[in-house]
Amino acid sequence: MANSQYEYVKAFEQPDILLPNTWVVVRIDGRGFTKMCTKYAFEKPNDRRALDLMNAAAKAVMAELPDITIAYGISDEYSFVFHKGCTLFERRASKLVSTVVSTFTAYYVFNWATYFPDTPLTAPLPSFDGRAVCYPSVRNLQDYMRWRQVDCHINNLYNTAFWSLIQIGGKDNREAEKQLSGTVAADKHEILFKECSINYNNEPEIYKKGSTIFRDYELVEPGTFNAQDEGDTFPEPAQQSKTQAEKEKKRRGKAAIVVHHLDIIKDEFWNRRPWLLTNKPGKVPKET
Amino acid sequence: MANSQYEYVKAFEQPDILLPNTWVVVRIDGRGFTKMCTKYAFEKPNDRRALDLMNAAAKAVMAELPDITIAYGISDEYSFVFHKGCTLFERRASKLVSTVVSTFTAYYVFNWATYFPDTPLTAPLPSFDGRAVCYPSVRNLQDYMRWRQVDCHINNLYNTAFWSLIQIGGKDNREAEKQLSGTVAADKHEILFKECSINYNNEPEIYKKGSTIFRDYELVEPGTFNAQDEGDTFPEPAQQSKTQAEKEKKRRGKAAIVVHHLDIIKDEFWNRRPWLLTNKPGKVPKET
Amino acid sequence: MANSQYEYVKAFEQPDILLPNTWVVVRIDGRGFTKMCTKYAFEKPNDRRALDLMNAAAKAVMAELPDITIAYGISDEYSFVFHKGCTLFERRASKLVSTVVSTFTAYYVFNWATYFPDTPLTAPLPSFDGRAVCYPSVRNLQDYMRWRQVDCHINNLYNTAFWSLIQIGGKDNREAEKQLSGTVAADKHEILFKECSINYNNEPEIYKKGSTIFRDYELVEPGTFNAQDEGDTFPEPAQQSKTQAEKEKKRRGKAAIVVHHLDIIKDEFWNRRPWLLTNKPGKVPKET
Amino acid sequence: MANSQYEYVKAFEQPDILLPNTWVVVRIDGRGFTKMCTKYAFEKPNDRRALDLMNAAAKAVMAELPDITIAYGISDEYSFVFHKGCTLFERRASKLVSTVVSTFTAYYVFNWATYFPDTPLTAPLPSFDGRAVCYPSVRNLQDYMRWRQVDCHINNLYNTAFWSLIQIGGKDNREAEKQLSGTVAADKHEILFKECSINYNNEPEIYKKGSTIFRDYELVEPGTFNAQDEGDTFPEPAQQSKTQAEKEKKRRGKAAIVVHHLDIIKDEFWNRRPWLLTNKPGKVPKET
Repeated sequence: MANSQYEYVKAFEQPDILLPNTWVVVRIDGRGFTKMCTKYAFEKPNDRRALDLMNAAAKAVMAELPDITIAYGISDEYSFVFHKGCTLFERRASKLVSTVVSTFTAYYVFNWATYFPDTPLTAPLPSFDGRAVCYPSVRNLQDYMRWRQVDCHINNLYNTAFWSLIQIGGKDNREAEKQLSGTVAADKHEILFKECSINYNNEPEIYKKGSTIFRDYELVEPGTFNAQDEGDTFPEPAQQSKTQAEKEKKRRGKAAIVVHHLDIIKDEFWNRRPWLLTNKPGKVPKET
Repeated sequence: MANSQYEYVKAFEQPDILLPNTWVVVRIDGRGFTKMCTKYAFEKPNDRRALDLMNAAAKAVMAELPDITIAYGISDEYSFVFHKGCTLFERRASKLVSTVVSTFTAYYVFNWATYFPDTPLTAPLPSFDGRAVCYPSVRNLQDYMRWRQVDCHINNLYNTAFWSLIQIGGKDNREAEKQLSGTVAADKHEILFKECSINYNNEPEIYKKGSTIFRDYELVEPGTFNAQDEGDTFPEPAQQSKTQAEKEKKRRGKAAIVVHHLDIIKDEFWNRRPWLLTNKPGKVPKET
Repeated sequence: MANSQYEYVKAFEQPDILLPNTWVVVRIDGRGFTKMCTKYAFEKPNDRRALDLMNAAAKAVMAELPDITIAYGISDEYSFVFHKGCTLFERRASKLVSTVVSTFTAYYVFNWATYFPDTPLTAPLPSFDGRAVCYPSVRNLQDYMRWRQVDCHINNLYNTAFWSLIQIGGKDNREAEKQLSGTVAADKHEILFKECSINYNNEPEIYKKGSTIFRDYELVEPGTFNAQDEGDTFPEPAQQSKTQAEKEKKRRGKAAIVVHHLDIIKDEFWNRRPWLLTNKPGKVPKET
Repeated sequence: MANSQYEYVKAFEQPDILLPNTWVVVRIDGRGFTKMCTKYAFEKPNDRRALDLMNAAAKAVMAELPDITIAYGISDEYSFVFHKGCTLFERRASKLVSTVVSTFTAYYVFNWATYFPDTPLTAPLPSFDGRAVCYPSVRNLQDYMRWRQVDCHINNLYNTAFWSLIQIGGKDNREAEKQLSGTVAADKHEILFKECSINYNNEPEIYKKGSTIFRDYELVEPGTFNAQDEGDTFPEPAQQSKTQAEKEKKRRGKAAIVVHHLDIIKDEFWNRRPWLLTNKPGKVPKET
């Protein structure tokens, strides 16, 4: 029985190949997480278990997809960066996005019980949506990451102030909202300090900075690498031998994947970790 | 702290809105399921538990996304059809695809233990990729579904013959492959019957026809509806009042979602179930 | 000398194939025609020579591209409809758009002297931009055409009233604008009639209805064809034999291409000219 | 008369905005120029008048679209490079392509009589199609241009040898083709020299190198600019003040647009003309 009569329908599938030689960011977002927070009684303003679960799922994604060089997560969102030379799935957007989203979701659901042992999942289950965006230059990519971290800072400062006014200051939602309306960062710091005895600078880094995941190599000496200058001049597609590529892939596969809560806005973060942009594995750190 | 300095990066996100007034098929496929089959010792040629798990996950997807009017699954793939009038997520491809893939994955992982109680999941976890394709006419959409069901038939007949030759006929892989090479359907039927005492027509429908999922209403009388003629003349975008739309959504929400193993190639399947194409809820069947 | 070292750049070209089985409308618009009107002293509110030149160029486009079944023009814009079964240039958007725009421009510049014998062209020369839009159903396509003709009507009624108030009524621009502000169609008819002694209904059809171009066959009897019902059920891609296709192409090539100024909003226009939607050549009208 | 009933059709137009911060190359190609060459008896292997006409049209395009920083033409094709910071038409692909194609065609037809005074144009008129391709890095852009120039070289050497064997050597087409089959560049040089007394190196540069068009500023000293290093680190979108941008636009508008026949494969071409990549106007050369 031939299938040719209907096979013409295959021609309706439209290609969605992402522009070569650009950095691909796949960002995923929790669907309906406001409801989720209520349903599972997430702590406010931050639920450490929920963030740790996000990080565990993101680490698993990076382990399964070595083309990802760095990931950054805050709240219920995570951004995964595929190197500009990446040719995974021929750079098809739907394959890249759906694979990241599916893998992330699988580990999120699978690991739920580890982080919420007393709160079993029930339908409707948590899920995520995703999208892919291309960035042509290292500067564009860094600015994307900076944008997310600034967002993290703005949101966390506001949320910390808001919930502290309620939980410590005894305000209700409307009072807290009103008090914060129109304030700048310095005002919020002061409100926190004076009314809630909280020094925002002492808040946990994971809340203030979000979570950055990458492979762990030795930092290079300051001044030896300039991310922005060198970042765009790296090997164009297919300028590396297959053997070399395989070798590096293997070395990447062996590197530990670590979660940090660092300032990724400053150039220093990028300049001391050349592998994030060059995709060349660095030195494996000595164990201590 | 203003975020405006970096916000320009948002402009790099490119729209991916699917053409209005077209049927959207989101098809998902298991990633690396050949390995999965081996790892979890799926039965050959079909593992009923695995198919039931796929169907359970697909039913959950349809329950959460009422814009889906019909779904069809075989092996490790599932196709979900969004009605041509659907405006969910403004028809953004990446949102539609990622939401379907993520929801499906969540239920697949969550329900695994129900169908494989003795075989716990371990990393790497099962995951799925997906894509969206638009079909302008009812005929195109039907032909897409027919294409998948013909594929189901071709593959299942081959696999049944192949594995029967091995499991019953005592052949090894190469011998079985060689014997089937160049045979047509009738030959395979005969091989099955003569060498393995299997009448292919008596094989379970779920294997021969795949699984079709839809909302359960009363069949209409033959001859009262012609899917192909009427299917394209339905309300264009935004020709229905909001109240009406809400009312129908509610009725759809109440309908039972059922799994059948039917011939969807014949016109009869479509003509007796107008709601699959009109998206208008039918009569709720009387309980017996 | 091999060129392979640089040929990788070809991979950056991204496909832009239009969805199969949809009607493709390529609309072109004059660039900076407000300036053009002043520079070449076009008559207001309509310059017959300019419209005739537009129509001449559009006829030439249709003669060179037989896949176009109908075209509609008003002012400095023209819409060309490629049949939904069209496979010209593999339906690549940039090829379709650029070919239409280039051919149109060539004839516009070439024929200028015929219509403006006393006003030679000088740099900057007239030029046009273009875009392609897909419409899945006959109804969508018809509504697109209706949208353009309603626009023609609205603009022409306003412009006729505006310029008559100035040219006949002796008003200046601001007075005319003010008087028309907030008026409905009936008001404008009355203003024209009372203040300028113009019965709008007697204005030339080309100004009121725009220009429709198609191949000239005999009208079918009323009631024998229903454009909207039959329009979507026509042969899907590649369901016609090559010989048959060639034969029809030849017959189309022989048909006269005519310019009319008709009501294309009413169903009657479409129902009596089945070939516009079926793409099957009709009967060649007897010469009289 | 409201138009709202049909205006929904506008939603079918799909955005085609090119990725920001990438170099946009619009390449146009003559349609059916093989026939054109015969019809108008173009000289073989190169018709100087036809090339000069192409160059005149390309110069006009650059004059009308100052966002183009460089153009390169061979035979019946021309590539126009929009700077990566260009925001013309919001970077909509169809607008960019159609505008270039239309403007080019207008000047080609308009100027025909100047270059072919004795051969009037007749229908079907010459026309061009076009497409846009994005290149993320300076290296990618340069390699695109190199690819075209290498193509020019390969084709011109072959064509020169082929037509010389016929015109001077008295061979027929098949003999010439056969003799050149399998030869490398050196062989062709030798055939030309021995059999036709032609030293290929003395052929006109316009045939060997193609035509490069850009704004004319003073060359910078060798070693003061490194195109590839600096080329990617230029101002990202919107990092320049409007006043500054306007000022530079004015200066660009004043610069002479010149046609040269240079080696654009070597880095030197790019390093001595920083304005091609920075888009900052250079020094206006002193008149002599």
